[in-house]
Amino acid sequence: MTSQTHQEPTQSRADGRAVDQLREVTITRNWLDHAEGSVLVEFGRTRVLCAASFTAGVPRWRKGSGKGWVTAEYAMLPRATNTRNSRESVKGKIGGRTHEISRLVGRSLRAIVDVDALGENTIVLDCDVLQADGGTRTAAITGAYVALADAVATGKAAGDIPKNANPLTGSVSAVSVGVIDGTPMLDLAYVEDVRAETDMNVVMTGTGDFVEVQGTAEGAPFNRAELDKLLDLAVAGGADLTKIQNAALSEDARA
Amino acid sequence: MTSQTHQEPTQSRADGRAVDQLREVTITRNWLDHAEGSVLVEFGRTRVLCAASFTAGVPRWRKGSGKGWVTAEYAMLPRATNTRNSRESVKGKIGGRTHEISRLVGRSLRAIVDVDALGENTIVLDCDVLQADGGTRTAAITGAYVALADAVATGKAAGDIPKNANPLTGSVSAVSVGVIDGTPMLDLAYVEDVRAETDMNVVMTGTGDFVEVQGTAEGAPFNRAELDKLLDLAVAGGADLTKIQNAALSEDARA
Amino acid sequence: MTSQTHQEPTQSRADGRAVDQLREVTITRNWLDHAEGSVLVEFGRTRVLCAASFTAGVPRWRKGSGKGWVTAEYAMLPRATNTRNSRESVKGKIGGRTHEISRLVGRSLRAIVDVDALGENTIVLDCDVLQADGGTRTAAITGAYVALADAVATGKAAGDIPKNANPLTGSVSAVSVGVIDGTPMLDLAYVEDVRAETDMNVVMTGTGDFVEVQGTAEGAPFNRAELDKLLDLAVAGGADLTKIQNAALSEDARA
Amino acid sequence: MTSQTHQEPTQSRADGRAVDQLREVTITRNWLDHAEGSVLVEFGRTRVLCAASFTAGVPRWRKGSGKGWVTAEYAMLPRATNTRNSRESVKGKIGGRTHEISRLVGRSLRAIVDVDALGENTIVLDCDVLQADGGTRTAAITGAYVALADAVATGKAAGDIPKNANPLTGSVSAVSVGVIDGTPMLDLAYVEDVRAETDMNVVMTGTGDFVEVQGTAEGAPFNRAELDKLLDLAVAGGADLTKIQNAALSEDARA
Amino acid sequence: MTSQTHQEPTQSRADGRAVDQLREVTITRNWLDHAEGSVLVEFGRTRVLCAASFTAGVPRWRKGSGKGWVTAEYAMLPRATNTRNSRESVKGKIGGRTHEISRLVGRSLRAIVDVDALGENTIVLDCDVLQADGGTRTAAITGAYVALADAVATGKAAGDIPKNANPLTGSVSAVSVGVIDGTPMLDLAYVEDVRAETDMNVVMTGTGDFVEVQGTAEGAPFNRAELDKLLDLAVAGGADLTKIQNAALSEDARA
Amino acid sequence: MTSQTHQEPTQSRADGRAVDQLREVTITRNWLDHAEGSVLVEFGRTRVLCAASFTAGVPRWRKGSGKGWVTAEYAMLPRATNTRNSRESVKGKIGGRTHEISRLVGRSLRAIVDVDALGENTIVLDCDVLQADGGTRTAAITGAYVALADAVATGKAAGDIPKNANPLTGSVSAVSVGVIDGTPMLDLAYVEDVRAETDMNVVMTGTGDFVEVQGTAEGAPFNRAELDKLLDLAVAGGADLTKIQNAALSEDARA
Repeated sequence: MTSQTHQEPTQSRADGRAVDQLREVTITRNWLDHAEGSVLVEFGRTRVLCAASFTAGVPRWRKGSGKGWVTAEYAMLPRATNTRNSRESVKGKIGGRTHEISRLVGRSLRAIVDVDALGENTIVLDCDVLQADGGTRTAAITGAYVALADAVATGKAAGDIPKNANPLTGSVSAVSVGVIDGTPMLDLAYVEDVRAETDMNVVMTGTGDFVEVQGTAEGAPFNRAELDKLLDLAVAGGADLTKIQNAALSEDARA
Repeated sequence: MTSQTHQEPTQSRADGRAVDQLREVTITRNWLDHAEGSVLVEFGRTRVLCAASFTAGVPRWRKGSGKGWVTAEYAMLPRATNTRNSRESVKGKIGGRTHEISRLVGRSLRAIVDVDALGENTIVLDCDVLQADGGTRTAAITGAYVALADAVATGKAAGDIPKNANPLTGSVSAVSVGVIDGTPMLDLAYVEDVRAETDMNVVMTGTGDFVEVQGTAEGAPFNRAELDKLLDLAVAGGADLTKIQNAALSEDARA
Repeated sequence: MTSQTHQEPTQSRADGRAVDQLREVTITRNWLDHAEGSVLVEFGRTRVLCAASFTAGVPRWRKGSGKGWVTAEYAMLPRATNTRNSRESVKGKIGGRTHEISRLVGRSLRAIVDVDALGENTIVLDCDVLQADGGTRTAAITGAYVALADAVATGKAAGDIPKNANPLTGSVSAVSVGVIDGTPMLDLAYVEDVRAETDMNVVMTGTGDFVEVQGTAEGAPFNRAELDKLLDLAVAGGADLTKIQNAALSEDARA
Repeated sequence: MTSQTHQEPTQSRADGRAVDQLREVTITRNWLDHAEGSVLVEFGRTRVLCAASFTAGVPRWRKGSGKGWVTAEYAMLPRATNTRNSRESVKGKIGGRTHEISRLVGRSLRAIVDVDALGENTIVLDCDVLQADGGTRTAAITGAYVALADAVATGKAAGDIPKNANPLTGSVSAVSVGVIDGTPMLDLAYVEDVRAETDMNVVMTGTGDFVEVQGTAEGAPFNRAELDKLLDLAVAGGADLTKIQNAALSEDARA
Repeated sequence: MTSQTHQEPTQSRADGRAVDQLREVTITRNWLDHAEGSVLVEFGRTRVLCAASFTAGVPRWRKGSGKGWVTAEYAMLPRATNTRNSRESVKGKIGGRTHEISRLVGRSLRAIVDVDALGENTIVLDCDVLQADGGTRTAAITGAYVALADAVATGKAAGDIPKNANPLTGSVSAVSVGVIDGTPMLDLAYVEDVRAETDMNVVMTGTGDFVEVQGTAEGAPFNRAELDKLLDLAVAGGADLTKIQNAALSEDARA
Repeated sequence: MTSQTHQEPTQSRADGRAVDQLREVTITRNWLDHAEGSVLVEFGRTRVLCAASFTAGVPRWRKGSGKGWVTAEYAMLPRATNTRNSRESVKGKIGGRTHEISRLVGRSLRAIVDVDALGENTIVLDCDVLQADGGTRTAAITGAYVALADAVATGKAAGDIPKNANPLTGSVSAVSVGVIDGTPMLDLAYVEDVRAETDMNVVMTGTGDFVEVQGTAEGAPFNRAELDKLLDLAVAGGADLTKIQNAALSEDARA
């Protein structure tokens, strides 16, 4: 395993962070032996295992298109949270939240994938939350990108993707922002998230453009000025996450 | 039935509209005889039946809290669309999109509900898309607010809600915006929606604050300037929708 | 939209009708823009949206048979009724009543379809009850026939069905009859239906033959004489419905 | 076990029967050791195991009503038929046909039950088809009545039902009739059933009144004269079944 | 039907049996008319209907392999037991116990099947417990072997299996053993099973080798000496069952 | 986190182990922050996360009994294996294997729990396989015991379990054994498992008694001598596992 850790100076919140500071973010590549790409990503105590499964070929409905397919599934272990949740496989159906986040992760990754360059290959990203402390979906996207990059490299090494093809048009990361007691803050931990008046998840490319912006008024509606401040925080956080992703990927993965 | 129709001057799109122009929006109240509030809302050819069911009492987990409960379910008839979709009840599970929109509609309405003022009463909003031509979720939210207002009035008339209580802290409406061939446009019809590079749904109060902002890059990621233009369009569209809602509600409902 | 309304003189029941009188029956064709045939059918306050989806080709198990396929699905919106019912898609399974009526509607339509003349084409009828006030299954069959006829015409216009083929061997309609306080009555509204000692649904062709006869003793068993009187009422009601269907179909559908 | 067999003289059909002749009908009581009433009923090669489960008390929604509850479930073993059918428990859902017949059996039995006299007790009838050769639903109803009668007797013996109460207001049996090659026939075997132009199931009381009449045109629609002939056949067959039921019940059950 | 009954001298248990004595075991072949092999097997009051369905061809994933496929499904009728159990098809999912036993029965039979000699043919064993009094899984395996043998014979007679092929490499039977009040006993009835400190199911070939050994400490853990005694009992019981199976198969099946 | 690693000298197998040698077994306690007990257990490359959730109180059906309840759920992440498996929550049902192992883990733990001493408290063990390389169920049981012990300690510290109560009557561990190319071996890795002629899982207490013995002939049936050798190997392996468990538990858990 190789691991890339990033730690910022602390200042003021419950955990001593500055309002514009990420939690400690750690990306450990090759956490699994079988997967073509795998990452254990940690945003503070939030811990998500991202596994990328590369298979030559595409689903039947896409055959002959020359295009690849990237999709994602997000889930949470029953005891990832403070109190145990029932297992969705036992309940026999997936909850709305799970569905919603799986779709978000998939869309976010596809935003930086060139399916023509990928060719008729499929990559499935499994993001399983082992421990939840706020920001599980943003950690999942941030980690899944690194696992995806490794899976693409594996596909190239195996000859399924041509050497000169560039299936990834850029990188993608995500971070949450929110307004707590009137103050906009970056990367909310669970205790902050439940108190936030406004909660926003922002998915960005490595070049600072937006892939998804999802803001929700949990308490009172928010105005344009608040929205702008939250976006500013998110953009800065995204830049930090991009650096951490790049640092992780620049290490010799299987050394 | 009473009906309130709003029509704007046309200018340039496939259907002749200006880029900042809503489709013809029609809100027909009391479309159903049994429901405590009901609206057939039309955004152009998109047609959504919104039924508000008021019941005294709350679910078991909320009993004794003194607080009410508002929730929503969104669904689409199999032949609302160009080609028939399988019925979710027959498939035995709800798709991710349905789940996601049901949750969005519920959150949007709860943003303008004072659950203490509502008291221990429940209102369920059923938003069934009879015909889909883009913007079904925004039409659903816009229509559901009117049905909700009627259901609250019914609850007051029946004495379940005290006369002087104000369970609604404001109004809520929603509209889609998107970038097509580089041009930001308001209230996308289906043919526009499928071509949009960026697609955003904005839920706003009658006072112009944001309840939800959900922007998605369908093609290339979008930058801050584009985001700002889209929000400008949405805010103006929301103001128009608020007027249409108010006009509909100002008519004598059961005349 | 085109609409065909039929109103009979009133006489004696809760709603002033004579015992052998239908409620006001309205058939509005082309209620939807996408479906190959669509009808909003109303039996008094009962309101059912019937959409016929025509597709060239048949399911795999019927390929190469030269025969077409006609099937139907019936469902009820949650707030079609006096109090809200849980959504079957949310419960994850279809109830017995829904299953039973879907099968009845499908069989009734197939009784007047010549699948050889239809050729390898499929027509699916979706009958969604928007508002229920008794007789939803009979309204569904009566309306679905008209939607089916329009879908066949669409199939012919598109060249999927040969011009000289006659896939419909006749017409079909349905009506409920029942015994209330010892008196046989035609076309029961909900308040009558719940009080009926015997309840019967009769599906008939336009020539007055029977396709389905389903009589149920809700209270005391019924004898042959009662059965005969109920059938007499139904046959007369069926003749009236046939006239209304024909009148609706004789209008220029897309004028 | 005690067993009551009934055999009529043969005449003309594939199996040599006269058109108005039942197959050999056998009712074996107490086929199970645990159930409060149980019957193996055979209509020729059709073999249905009917188990009546008596429990003191009623479902929550009926508590305090003073009324009892009778319900039924019908199912078929996978290899009851000529070729194996998938198991509904494995498929995870019950088919429409199963649902429909379960409801029919339950309604048929409730038609001769006085729920006030039954008191707050529940009887569940399980009708499992061990072998199918046509007429499984009619055999199920005919056998279930006898199992129900035994369960009522068990309830009385246990003191759960007062000695002088009469929860059964009569008996009920059922038989199929159909038109084959233009000839109305009684009690169709599978080879006849698949060829029938019209198929009717008739549920009758021991006094010859109707509980359910369900006639279906499988091929061409049927007219009033055919309907009348089928009902005549069914009524005569029902009288025969009533005798067989009574004979079975008159034997000393647990001798 | 042909039937083979085996009865041992009685000695000491609740039902008077010796500790090393089987209950009365009865194997009735050809209990069903349609199945290619069928057996009603009884271990005392436990009664299991085993139906073997032979079909030429194999599932898609096995095509072209030259190998056959044998699988099994076990289930229990709702009123097989002392009190009624909910129907798994109605609950919409199969319980863990059902799953587990279905898998055990399938593995046990495959242990004596030469899939190459079977050729590309499929045999499905349905084991439905009509009445349960302990040992249902062991009765199911013991009976299913006989049904399987008959299905193989049917497949040979039909020419689907070559005359000189030997798809069965031996026979298989199963029996339960357990420790009750410190005493190891053979073939536990339900009243014994619930009191057993240790419960073991042993599946053996006709030559006395083991196919499955599943021992479970229900109360206190068990030691090696107890395990050895239980295995001794099981091996002797298995030898008895083999004789009963062979006797049943040596009768002229369809005489 | 605290971690306890055990490594044996290597000798002969694919991975160089002796036939009676465990893989490297590592037990890392407190791998999760929220769970009342949690362990990451590794048997070589097999990696299982065991979380014990302690809650005061018992399910409704056990209330007032004075007894506690211990249960377990086992599952595998989609990419725990060489190739990706579909997610059971997405398929909407749990497979037979999952069901079977969940039940085994639960039974194994309950064998060493004194539910009276536990009092009316519930402990749920979630065993999620993060990576699979053979022996996942035995690793799950071995790790779950340690998590269970920590959860009991947590319950005592919180005062839910009396200080002097001993809810654990001993320890429990499990190991697989199998015959490969005629040689009995301990603790099979995946490459060995798929080649094993006989496969056995043995669950033992710390005192060397048996809780479960599950032996299966994957190829040819096995005889008594082979069974005895396999049990010898398992008992020795169980003793080693007990030492590793004790060593892990003797460290200061939350240091």
